[in-house]
Amino acid sequence: MEFPKITLVGVGLLGGSVGLAAKASGVASSVCGLVRRKESIDECLAAGVVDEATLVPDKALADAGLVILCTPVGGMGKLTGRLKPHLEPKAILTDVGSVKAGVVAAVEQQWPRFVGSHPLAGSEKTGVAHAHADLLQDALCVVTPTAQSDATVVDTVETFWRSLGSRTLCLSPEAHDTIVARTSHLPHVLATALVRAVLGRAENGEAEFCATGFRDTTRLASGSAPLWRDIALANPIAIAAAVADLQTELDGLRLALDAKDAAALEKFFEDGQTLRGEWLRGKK
Amino acid sequence: MEFPKITLVGVGLLGGSVGLAAKASGVASSVCGLVRRKESIDECLAAGVVDEATLVPDKALADAGLVILCTPVGGMGKLTGRLKPHLEPKAILTDVGSVKAGVVAAVEQQWPRFVGSHPLAGSEKTGVAHAHADLLQDALCVVTPTAQSDATVVDTVETFWRSLGSRTLCLSPEAHDTIVARTSHLPHVLATALVRAVLGRAENGEAEFCATGFRDTTRLASGSAPLWRDIALANPIAIAAAVADLQTELDGLRLALDAKDAAALEKFFEDGQTLRGEWLRGKK
Repeated sequence: MEFPKITLVGVGLLGGSVGLAAKASGVASSVCGLVRRKESIDECLAAGVVDEATLVPDKALADAGLVILCTPVGGMGKLTGRLKPHLEPKAILTDVGSVKAGVVAAVEQQWPRFVGSHPLAGSEKTGVAHAHADLLQDALCVVTPTAQSDATVVDTVETFWRSLGSRTLCLSPEAHDTIVARTSHLPHVLATALVRAVLGRAENGEAEFCATGFRDTTRLASGSAPLWRDIALANPIAIAAAVADLQTELDGLRLALDAKDAAALEKFFEDGQTLRGEWLRGKK
Repeated sequence: MEFPKITLVGVGLLGGSVGLAAKASGVASSVCGLVRRKESIDECLAAGVVDEATLVPDKALADAGLVILCTPVGGMGKLTGRLKPHLEPKAILTDVGSVKAGVVAAVEQQWPRFVGSHPLAGSEKTGVAHAHADLLQDALCVVTPTAQSDATVVDTVETFWRSLGSRTLCLSPEAHDTIVARTSHLPHVLATALVRAVLGRAENGEAEFCATGFRDTTRLASGSAPLWRDIALANPIAIAAAVADLQTELDGLRLALDAKDAAALEKFFEDGQTLRGEWLRGKK
């Protein structure tokens, strides 16, 4: 499979990395970036992630067989409405948003040749300067068709991600959102809550005592606040349920601490150690 | 300052790193390791962390001017009782335990020339094979004197840690425990609770979706379960209070999720991002 032209709408860390990987893999003859700010054009070209960057939708979308929305999840519906008049009739549309149900519903009603994607690859770093071609390599990319999806479109989008080195898996948008609420959104909100609980209440010079363990456990809290506000707004019920399960774990821990229950405390830590060890081994 | 002989009681990751750093800095003419298992002798010598390793307390402690307990916090009181008959009368005793009040009370009543220490350096890795000389470099080492501590002993122990490249700070054992409950024990129990909440309830193949964010946020959960059981048992009230503050943060988040309150959600993430950014800048 090869596209004469692929267009990235929004070229940050993830969009830029898709651009680099698409160029490296040869899946596209030409990669174009549609950006909002004039300075982004030079940034994209300097980072070498696209062959061409422009502010003009008509120019960006002409002849593009695959268009990938790499913008924050909050505005993808409206964005599609603005892009629609400029899309080639046969253009296939996908996105890289980390929440799917709302995005998919908003976009596919405007462009039936759309199927949602979520490459599970990222960084707390943002911006095209941090893009790198192997971000997608060996990553899992979830593709989220619905009952209305065209099988050829789904197949093309899956094949595209595989050509960048990602593994793909098809799930309904709702199933995807329930799972990532636990595996991705929960770690993120927890990292943030931990920063707030420790550094937001640092009455005894706690900042000086925070070392590498704190640094790694809170790494995700440095992610973009507007981006995560939109993710939280797009998946509130599943995230709240995941937080509730986490709080149940903490309630159990507090009971064991109050009772100085050595066996229960050891089991708490032992289960965590074992489960994580099994997970790590499964990754290899 | 130079000690003719320093003895490490227990030679794992931290003890081994202290041994390497003491040898490299020239603070000790000779470093001896007192270990429990026969195989540990060869492991210590293979890792090059001590000049001599033995199972025999009398041999290990003869002529040792500084003795450092590098064993789990649960058993340090009993251990001191067993070592006492073999200690030189002038020997200075310290430890590297991550909880202080209970350890200090148990040890100093048996050996007045004791002052507690806690080098804030570690790893989820354990064992002498992972020891390295620069683990202590630029680390904060808290020294915890009490009203009964001999000023010369405190001064000697502080000078020792500084000679390994650590910065030192004196705090009461209780103040230390309150602070590390937040900065160290809370991240650890949270990492464990997260593993349990996600991988312990993985009904939809969640393990496959856990990526680098989950990996880093849960790194601490791979620490030794018996070690952390003992830390939790030694500091239950302060840890429970820290967990309660964390739960207050999560309660606030759930209210904002239920209300789909965009401003509150943005502030939640924004505060976390800002506080962590300020902390990281302060570390440089």
